[in-house]
Amino acid sequence: MSKYAIIVAGGSGSRMLSEVPKQFMLLNGQPIIIHTVKRFLAVADLEIVVVLPEAHLDRWLAIKNTYFQGQHGITETIGGSTRFQSVKNGLAKISGEAGYVSVHDAVRPLIKTSLINESFAQASRHDSAVLVVKSKDSLRKIDGESNQAIDREKIYQVQTPQTFELALFRKAYEQPESNAFTDDASVIESHGHRVHTINGDYANLKITTPEDLVIAESLLKFADL
Amino acid sequence: MSKYAIIVAGGSGSRMLSEVPKQFMLLNGQPIIIHTVKRFLAVADLEIVVVLPEAHLDRWLAIKNTYFQGQHGITETIGGSTRFQSVKNGLAKISGEAGYVSVHDAVRPLIKTSLINESFAQASRHDSAVLVVKSKDSLRKIDGESNQAIDREKIYQVQTPQTFELALFRKAYEQPESNAFTDDASVIESHGHRVHTINGDYANLKITTPEDLVIAESLLKFADL
Repeated sequence: MSKYAIIVAGGSGSRMLSEVPKQFMLLNGQPIIIHTVKRFLAVADLEIVVVLPEAHLDRWLAIKNTYFQGQHGITETIGGSTRFQSVKNGLAKISGEAGYVSVHDAVRPLIKTSLINESFAQASRHDSAVLVVKSKDSLRKIDGESNQAIDREKIYQVQTPQTFELALFRKAYEQPESNAFTDDASVIESHGHRVHTINGDYANLKITTPEDLVIAESLLKFADL
Repeated sequence: MSKYAIIVAGGSGSRMLSEVPKQFMLLNGQPIIIHTVKRFLAVADLEIVVVLPEAHLDRWLAIKNTYFQGQHGITETIGGSTRFQSVKNGLAKISGEAGYVSVHDAVRPLIKTSLINESFAQASRHDSAVLVVKSKDSLRKIDGESNQAIDREKIYQVQTPQTFELALFRKAYEQPESNAFTDDASVIESHGHRVHTINGDYANLKITTPEDLVIAESLLKFADL
């Protein structure tokens, strides 16, 4: 089957107290996004589209040239003003009609290649495969002045990659954008399809704060990616 | 005001793939529970009750003697078969009638003393103070075959300490136990009281897996406790 990945590197870095957007910050001496792309490059016969803000294009091309010179199968495109628009732009760079597409956050560099492969395998059976892990903490709904415990047994944290059958994914992305689209699974769901979930990995951290970077560095030492 | 802490060390260690219960595992060379108790000892005029399984009592008394010899204000009691029973046993060791009691997980050693102080200060104004942090991830409710995106903007992860006015807390713990009691806030709520939440700290990690221990070691290097 044809396999594609859209790696979304949209962050502006404002939460990292840094001028360098988080996807370019160094993790064990290499930009975070380089770690992430390497995990996907280890998947056989995969085409990768990196989506990033126009302001970061030159920086990306420079490090791509440093780390992946002569490597085929990595292209890039400019993101939009929202995650939905960015994924849509990434999708437009994919020419194939059939196959499967895996959308992943650039700032999740600890994704195991075995899990990416598993998500393609599961999507080929169920049309979708979305990584989830059970919430470890008690949860509480806070809505204005009211707040209330909620049953954590049924609540899962959603990760990426989220992998989908390509034609289904294209159709879902023809919908008008909605604020309810927090991830690709919600776009598919809004299009009327049931989403298939698979077991994610607690170590598949999304790096959004300086302390996450510290955590990722130590996990990387122990990781069997 | 009189201040009390109940530090709950109930875990048997089964998730840590280790014979040593997680609260006794070493973090930077010291048992996790020692780090935790030290954070509370730094609070002025606080009495601490450590609640732990009977099988671990000797181990606790030995390390208590090593780290806190001659130190006043730390007692211990045997836990029950559930967290509710354990907290109730801890509460029975508190002789005071008035004041505030803070319940904390022994396996959250990275709690900042400043946050413990803040929780007592807020509880003295609002009768309760429960630490929460906003969920960083997209969330999904999975219930049997059905699964659905939920709005993460209103969902918070609940941490400890959870601090309460003592008489209110005693009354709430006279209720019959229920499966809905996932933390002390839910016990108070079931008793008919509104819970006051305050900002927690993403670094206030609950150590439940081997990788959490790795994360905690690196956070500890950067922590300003």
